[in-house]
Amino acid sequence: MGDKVIGIDIGGTNLRGALVDSQGNILKRMKILSEADQGIDKLIDNLTNFISDISKGEKVTNIGVGIPGILDSKEGIITQAPNILNVNDYPLRSVLNEKLGSALNVAIENDANSAAVGEWWMGAAKDVNSMIMLTMGTGVGGGIVLDDKLWTGAYGMAGEIGHITIYPDGARCNCGNYGCLESYASATAIRRMVKEGLEDKKLNTALRETTENVHIKDIPKIVMEAAGAGDSFSLGIWQEVGKALGIAIASLVNLLNVEMVVIGGGVSNAWDLFIETTYKEAHRRAFRAPMKRAKIQRGILRDDAGILGSAYLALKSCNEKRS
Amino acid sequence: MGDKVIGIDIGGTNLRGALVDSQGNILKRMKILSEADQGIDKLIDNLTNFISDISKGEKVTNIGVGIPGILDSKEGIITQAPNILNVNDYPLRSVLNEKLGSALNVAIENDANSAAVGEWWMGAAKDVNSMIMLTMGTGVGGGIVLDDKLWTGAYGMAGEIGHITIYPDGARCNCGNYGCLESYASATAIRRMVKEGLEDKKLNTALRETTENVHIKDIPKIVMEAAGAGDSFSLGIWQEVGKALGIAIASLVNLLNVEMVVIGGGVSNAWDLFIETTYKEAHRRAFRAPMKRAKIQRGILRDDAGILGSAYLALKSCNEKRS
Repeated sequence: MGDKVIGIDIGGTNLRGALVDSQGNILKRMKILSEADQGIDKLIDNLTNFISDISKGEKVTNIGVGIPGILDSKEGIITQAPNILNVNDYPLRSVLNEKLGSALNVAIENDANSAAVGEWWMGAAKDVNSMIMLTMGTGVGGGIVLDDKLWTGAYGMAGEIGHITIYPDGARCNCGNYGCLESYASATAIRRMVKEGLEDKKLNTALRETTENVHIKDIPKIVMEAAGAGDSFSLGIWQEVGKALGIAIASLVNLLNVEMVVIGGGVSNAWDLFIETTYKEAHRRAFRAPMKRAKIQRGILRDDAGILGSAYLALKSCNEKRS
Repeated sequence: MGDKVIGIDIGGTNLRGALVDSQGNILKRMKILSEADQGIDKLIDNLTNFISDISKGEKVTNIGVGIPGILDSKEGIITQAPNILNVNDYPLRSVLNEKLGSALNVAIENDANSAAVGEWWMGAAKDVNSMIMLTMGTGVGGGIVLDDKLWTGAYGMAGEIGHITIYPDGARCNCGNYGCLESYASATAIRRMVKEGLEDKKLNTALRETTENVHIKDIPKIVMEAAGAGDSFSLGIWQEVGKALGIAIASLVNLLNVEMVVIGGGVSNAWDLFIETTYKEAHRRAFRAPMKRAKIQRGILRDDAGILGSAYLALKSCNEKRS
């Protein structure tokens, strides 16, 4: 198969993408600002320019786009995406077909699902047929691959691993529920834990000086560095994160008996500070046999996971068209 | 397709089975004691006699057997089954082939998985492609059908819905974990709640007289009747059961976005006493869109769920052999 496709990962800040061959090799890579906060029209301008630029001189018929939001993948519609201004039931596929030609096959998928597919196709889960990916960022995203196929749910909404309940009476989550995994294992969760801790004026921690007026994206790094320097409050936060992850993984493994759980996303950079707790908690809770066989691995593709996952889904839609 | 197959459901007490046609019609039905507590040899004797009896005068090449335990379905081995005495890595398929002829195709599956397949094939979930079944009995079993296929996991161990963690610091479960769904929504859980409640000598409840020295299987019925008669302690127990179920269902729907959740098993006879709480709790916690589309239904096949599920798996292995 000599197909080349484009895999794209749209983020709140950046729009990343690559020209990828059918073997998963990245041939050309580009990154621009998404400017998603300026609205969907601006984003579409950037996206179409991006596609034109990266496909210059190439014959590309298939692209895959990962989007942070709730989608109707079959119809190619963005249902809801809090990080893109003014988007609501937006027909992305038909808009791209209008602007770039109706011959273009456009696969769209939730970004966390794309990342799961990427790690399964070319990354940490390359050799397994079933896996779950957890992406720890501002929130916690997820994707589920079963029997070599992304399970997107009856209506394309599956994989919300960040919103399984860990502590029924726990901290309120952005989704409205209480005690979601996301409210214990994301940058948002870490910010909350720091804030709550600092309310105790007697608490002695380096974070008191370093986390003031800091953007949420930078909080995990600061707490990671403080923990690395021996700050015990910070170390405790990573234990909390690790424990929540372990509780979730035990339930997931008992439920789905997958071969691998891959953990990625920026917050997972603190891997060494939480993974032992995660591992112990998961093994303490889950059935021995399936847990023994479920490897817990760190993602290896980082920003390329989403790009490669989108590329895979583009290639797949390519093959589907043919068969 | 004119195939007739045998679907069997082995329980701790009874061995039920039926001759079933490819349309799911039950042509002949039988029930004997399993005597599983007398060991695997006795059970096998009963099983082979049962199969000979029910297939008398019929040409049957495929049978499906549902078994309460952890299996290796591909290899036809019972790995572990606490309700069958002295069974451990027992090669059920080859034993049956030895006794009944090597031409017999034997499909084996966990009994809760079989029940899920039964409800999906001929029962409450007949019209959907994805569903989760919860069987509330002495424990809580489960089965997951995705895209019209039973998901049994990478090693045949998936579907342990009773062992997802609901309350991380909750009651100890038979599996060793704390706060499993099973420890809040099974006959075992109800017995524990009654026992704990009665420790308060001041508690005024009809259960004080009616639950003494009663077999665990009869406890849910007694608590159901007491609740029906207005006993407020008993009503509270069903609220607890309903809440735990609702927490679990919210997580399952966020995770898997299935079209339906079917609830069966003897404890679900108290449906009217817990389902409103379940419904409210699930809707309060899950994402609106997938929860709105996930019907929560009571199983309709009762004891036939497992039989029909086993029959379906037998038919399927029949077709697989052919294609």
